[in-house]
Amino acid sequence: MNIENLGEFGFINSIKDGAIVRPLGVIKGIGDDCAVLGSFEGNAMLVTTDILVEDVHFTRAGIPPFKLGRKSLAVNISDIAAMGGLPREALLSAAIPKTVSLDYLQSWYDGVRSMAREFDINIIGGDTSSSPEKLVINVALIGEAAEDEILYRSGAKLGDAIFLTGPVGSSAAGLDALQNNREGEKWQSLIECHNNPYPHVAAGRVISGLKLAHSLIDVSDGIASDLRHICIESGVGALVYREAIPVADTAAEYISHYALDMDVFTLHSGEDYVLLGTTPPDSVSIMRDSLKSAGCGFYLIGEITSPGQISIRGADGAVKPLATGGFDHFKR
Amino acid sequence: MNIENLGEFGFINSIKDGAIVRPLGVIKGIGDDCAVLGSFEGNAMLVTTDILVEDVHFTRAGIPPFKLGRKSLAVNISDIAAMGGLPREALLSAAIPKTVSLDYLQSWYDGVRSMAREFDINIIGGDTSSSPEKLVINVALIGEAAEDEILYRSGAKLGDAIFLTGPVGSSAAGLDALQNNREGEKWQSLIECHNNPYPHVAAGRVISGLKLAHSLIDVSDGIASDLRHICIESGVGALVYREAIPVADTAAEYISHYALDMDVFTLHSGEDYVLLGTTPPDSVSIMRDSLKSAGCGFYLIGEITSPGQISIRGADGAVKPLATGGFDHFKR
Repeated sequence: MNIENLGEFGFINSIKDGAIVRPLGVIKGIGDDCAVLGSFEGNAMLVTTDILVEDVHFTRAGIPPFKLGRKSLAVNISDIAAMGGLPREALLSAAIPKTVSLDYLQSWYDGVRSMAREFDINIIGGDTSSSPEKLVINVALIGEAAEDEILYRSGAKLGDAIFLTGPVGSSAAGLDALQNNREGEKWQSLIECHNNPYPHVAAGRVISGLKLAHSLIDVSDGIASDLRHICIESGVGALVYREAIPVADTAAEYISHYALDMDVFTLHSGEDYVLLGTTPPDSVSIMRDSLKSAGCGFYLIGEITSPGQISIRGADGAVKPLATGGFDHFKR
Repeated sequence: MNIENLGEFGFINSIKDGAIVRPLGVIKGIGDDCAVLGSFEGNAMLVTTDILVEDVHFTRAGIPPFKLGRKSLAVNISDIAAMGGLPREALLSAAIPKTVSLDYLQSWYDGVRSMAREFDINIIGGDTSSSPEKLVINVALIGEAAEDEILYRSGAKLGDAIFLTGPVGSSAAGLDALQNNREGEKWQSLIECHNNPYPHVAAGRVISGLKLAHSLIDVSDGIASDLRHICIESGVGALVYREAIPVADTAAEYISHYALDMDVFTLHSGEDYVLLGTTPPDSVSIMRDSLKSAGCGFYLIGEITSPGQISIRGADGAVKPLATGGFDHFKR
């Protein structure tokens, strides 16, 4: 067995054992968007970390340093949003090759700081190192939430409606445009979606504040992969309505213009950083109204079914298994 | 200006501005071994992070994965020890190249877990990624301490005695032995000091519990560099007694055997992860006795002087400036 066979999630599963040696105060360890720690008077701490590696998560040519700085923090903020929390304190680590200039670094840090200000986040510490070749960035982010508001991957229930807080596909289309040098004016908004995602903290707060939803995750790996996390952790199945998946006009135009596979961009690609959740059918209309009046989106895209299968129903009514081929860092 | 001229600490200084946007609850931000957060009923949270990069901090040939795992956590635990705190919760990130086998990873993780168990630390989360070439590890660690026990770099006062909690030089000698292929039985204990450092949490707890010391830091970059941090943050100078610097017998033998420069190994090299602190002269004997009875070391190595200079006094009584050439990731 090597890591390419085991895969990223297999490896993460294999290390859960024995990770918690002092359970008191640990509400949730490895296995959700954030760890949840020690509630005091009903307040809990959320903790998450993400590593960004040059030529894996980004290229220096593809994203300006200011936007890389914003995105470095945004992907972590999105994990806090996916629990229904508020981001609070950030630690930044950077391994920096000699080919990175001080101007680049300062622009990167300006980007981090601009995102931090927008979300009222303190930068409280970090570490820097040289790096032989690639720029590597790690952010650890602490957030907070009332313990009874926090939403996990594991709470989905049979009959729940599955919803998204925004359209998908734009980030993947932007990445595709970058990779194929289609950087004209027409596709700039897609590239912007990929390089400068805006985490759905406001939507997460509305959803957690209502205390009606059963589960929540952010779409970082793709709907198919992230919905699978909810299904596995909740012990349920799911049916997705293909026609209901919201796709922004420009992304749809891009996919159609280059005759690309819509499913690849909307179901099997990530980094849109919208939220994917489940809520009882009788809460759908209040959830929709509350999100809309907060300026957030709500799109009903499926339903939670009995355990066993994640399926997709096409326009013709035919139901097929939904392959769960999200991005895996180690799978071949 | 580029980063090689500015240097690691110059860059860190340059990013302190505007880092804190919400001061409430932030007791200490960037600039000490840990950040210190929001005290409740006198209890504060310590937070630190360290990034380890292959071929910068370690080589895969030079350290077995199990020990790399232990050291990945140990360097962070040492930062908590340097504030007088207790380590509690860890987040692990790893960017993993294809040349790293699953066996290697599992052995690395076994090492992390063995160190975590020894210090009662939970592993609560993390992130994994592929990496084009180098293995990169980031650990973020949360600890705790009573707010009035926490020791900063900034508290040193004129007349304070400067002390160490253990001998120095063994880690640098071990690294030198590794780099020069002197891996025979005789120097194995030095290589072990380099590859498997043991953080001085117990000493830190004794020192913080006494509430007598004025400042504390861990020796990660070397006495000269780390003492300089205390002097700058405290606005004081220092005089180090060269003859009083404790050096383990095997390290002294190694340095002598290969006719190496003792100062380079004992003053200007780091990674011994002993604690360096300052305490009023009238507290020296109780500090010494308390540390000794807890099985910890105490070595008086100098005194805090008026601001302006960090000096060293040789065996002949001559006083010279102490060059502060600790390791800097970006200086040429």
